[in-house]
Amino acid sequence: MVNTLFLPELREMLADQNERELIEFCTALHPARTAEFVEGLTAEEAWKVIQFAEPPLRAEIFNYFELDRQIDILMHEDEKLVAGLLVHIPSDDVVDLLQELPENRAEDLLALMPPQARRDIRRLQNFPEGTAGSVMTTEAACLDERLTVREALEALSREAESLETVYYIYVVDDTNHLRGVVSTRRLVSSIARQDKHLSDLMETDLVTVHALDSQETAVQKVAHYNLLAIPVLDDRGHMLGIITHDDVIDVVREVATEDAQRIAAVQPLRDGYLRMNLFVLSYKRLIWLIILFFAELITAFVLSYYDVEFEKYIWLVWFIPLIISSGGNSGSQSATLIITALATDDVSLRDWSKIIRRELASGLVLGSCLALIGLGCALLMAPGPRQASVIPLTIMLVVICGTLSGSTLPLIFKRIGWDPALMSNPFVAGIIDILGILIYMTIAQLVL
Amino acid sequence: MVNTLFLPELREMLADQNERELIEFCTALHPARTAEFVEGLTAEEAWKVIQFAEPPLRAEIFNYFELDRQIDILMHEDEKLVAGLLVHIPSDDVVDLLQELPENRAEDLLALMPPQARRDIRRLQNFPEGTAGSVMTTEAACLDERLTVREALEALSREAESLETVYYIYVVDDTNHLRGVVSTRRLVSSIARQDKHLSDLMETDLVTVHALDSQETAVQKVAHYNLLAIPVLDDRGHMLGIITHDDVIDVVREVATEDAQRIAAVQPLRDGYLRMNLFVLSYKRLIWLIILFFAELITAFVLSYYDVEFEKYIWLVWFIPLIISSGGNSGSQSATLIITALATDDVSLRDWSKIIRRELASGLVLGSCLALIGLGCALLMAPGPRQASVIPLTIMLVVICGTLSGSTLPLIFKRIGWDPALMSNPFVAGIIDILGILIYMTIAQLVL
Repeated sequence: MVNTLFLPELREMLADQNERELIEFCTALHPARTAEFVEGLTAEEAWKVIQFAEPPLRAEIFNYFELDRQIDILMHEDEKLVAGLLVHIPSDDVVDLLQELPENRAEDLLALMPPQARRDIRRLQNFPEGTAGSVMTTEAACLDERLTVREALEALSREAESLETVYYIYVVDDTNHLRGVVSTRRLVSSIARQDKHLSDLMETDLVTVHALDSQETAVQKVAHYNLLAIPVLDDRGHMLGIITHDDVIDVVREVATEDAQRIAAVQPLRDGYLRMNLFVLSYKRLIWLIILFFAELITAFVLSYYDVEFEKYIWLVWFIPLIISSGGNSGSQSATLIITALATDDVSLRDWSKIIRRELASGLVLGSCLALIGLGCALLMAPGPRQASVIPLTIMLVVICGTLSGSTLPLIFKRIGWDPALMSNPFVAGIIDILGILIYMTIAQLVL
Repeated sequence: MVNTLFLPELREMLADQNERELIEFCTALHPARTAEFVEGLTAEEAWKVIQFAEPPLRAEIFNYFELDRQIDILMHEDEKLVAGLLVHIPSDDVVDLLQELPENRAEDLLALMPPQARRDIRRLQNFPEGTAGSVMTTEAACLDERLTVREALEALSREAESLETVYYIYVVDDTNHLRGVVSTRRLVSSIARQDKHLSDLMETDLVTVHALDSQETAVQKVAHYNLLAIPVLDDRGHMLGIITHDDVIDVVREVATEDAQRIAAVQPLRDGYLRMNLFVLSYKRLIWLIILFFAELITAFVLSYYDVEFEKYIWLVWFIPLIISSGGNSGSQSATLIITALATDDVSLRDWSKIIRRELASGLVLGSCLALIGLGCALLMAPGPRQASVIPLTIMLVVICGTLSGSTLPLIFKRIGWDPALMSNPFVAGIIDILGILIYMTIAQLVL
């Protein structure tokens, strides 16, 4: 929703160059709200408005703009001003933004940034997508272990403005090796003992990630150890940066979305639904649809093999979709339960025998209930009670097949090191379609 | 994985009552690691070990124990010691723990807690599950607006140990109305101006939630405004508590898991997969399976209506599963894409016409590709080229139906205020099964 409440006033202030009121507007509200209020202005006007905020606040407001507007500003506004803005944006976000620009514009902006910031960004750009290094920021509060509490607080108070987070102080030695961590909570509660050294206060049992670890690993550690930020190290224990809590929330959401998409047989999008090119989007769906199509083709061959039965007992045809969908649905349920339980560390591979026993029992319960309803319908539609018995027997067996294959396949995928979410529901359904028809026809041949 | 590395040493230290070494063990490591190392001990032994940690640290280690072990300890260890432990655990976690105990034991433990803590917990117990109030903790750093920076730092340093987070200071007036927020980052960077009052430093444009708002609302605000914690207020703006970043991460994961389960037609579990009672679990699956079963029953009636066609052209039967699964799979893809895009605020209802146009286009692309493959197979299996043309035509139309219904139904659900994830993939598949057969038979009648 575009908030149009202040638009006329803002346009008037801009026309009058009313400095006092524009400064007041930029500073009074939470930066996210300021960003909302200027959403109705053009990118050019919005950029003019936020010039009245101090650079760090300006960068914060800018960070809440929509991506399209951010790119518009980075592309068309004055290079020097824009480069000055980027200095105050967390380095991981700068990397993401520069990726969206044409290469020569990105290079021009980088060239105008201070050498240290430029080096940081170039280093981040080298980490492959999906790694901890690619989501970290280099702005961490790193202090020398020999500082006292008083000196540390003073150093922090000078740096606090430019740092993304000061909720942990990372204690490093002369060669930038991470030696320990002091939480600001600890620092604040040690104010009475101002002459203590950081090395006396710091925790030395550190939770860290390697820059090339996956971002999921980083998220799991942050969640497990209830951290606000996690330090990222290189091979030799040098401090490279930190991953902060807001990036962790973003990654958790991203991973959950990607899993849901994989479960439905879509290659993860990695970009907004509406922003994706339609052909790329179709491609990400098509590859799986074609694989599934060939799997389903097997059902056609299987069915063609049983022509004689169908010609004699045409009523068997009526129940084909019902039977295969019962198996498919119970299989999708099992697969999703196991995939989500694996993703949240609720079950592990060790539990496989317990899982299979539970799913076998579930299959028996679910299968019996559905078979009972199926029996009722079959008695109404089939020529006689003996013929009708084919339907409940088949449903029972197909549902058990569904729960068993739906639960074991993600476990097998996990075991061989693939993503269990790849064991998508349509894939389970495809397997059940083939198995279901084989079971159906075998039982029909036995009974009839 | 149970870590057995220190078990013999720990048992020996316990037998010798080696106080110095046990204190050393409890304090040297991150509390989460300490918890891992005592996992191989019995609950009783582990409880004895952590008695050597100071109460706040003891509570932290306890918080990392498995739920079963926590309950075991709360049930069987000395009441007074246990109640003393609960005082140091965040109040929202205490509420969750007490829920797992028999009522009389929970009451006994509550009776032994200090009156203020007891009142806090009773108040939290009254908030319905899923509300912001039910996940908040009452331990927030609330300070009077008239304090100076120096006084605030001193007050914090006294309280820091017992607070779950000191990353924001909530500034309240005499009647506990929330007036403003000061981040510790701001406080630390104001150390040079120690005589300033909190009311001069505080932000007054506050981001808050109401205690009865949904936890999803709280999470969305925390994520949108990049907060570490969000204050929870009652109707009259009184400060009740805060929701902290670690609870936010838990809620994000929980919501994503519940959505994935709904998409696969399972009622959200609200408890671990392995911990759920098997009959409750079956029930949560069965209700949806039965609804879907009745939907699929319609396909049986529809098919029975076309008996004449099948008797004449038995090869039409072969393609039934292939056709309905093509539609079902493309429909599930569309539904999942839209549900996840809605959940992450990537699309909104306003975008409906854009979404439908995209899905129509996707349906055309995907349908044409699958139809082409279908044509090849049909030419091999059907009696002649004219008959074969039924298959690609049907696939084309069914896939378009799939993408359109998969994308519009979640939007309609959202519009009427239901959870779009309820528009589960099996449900879309069920609709497509019925539509698919109708389309198939209509085209067959027209062509043959």
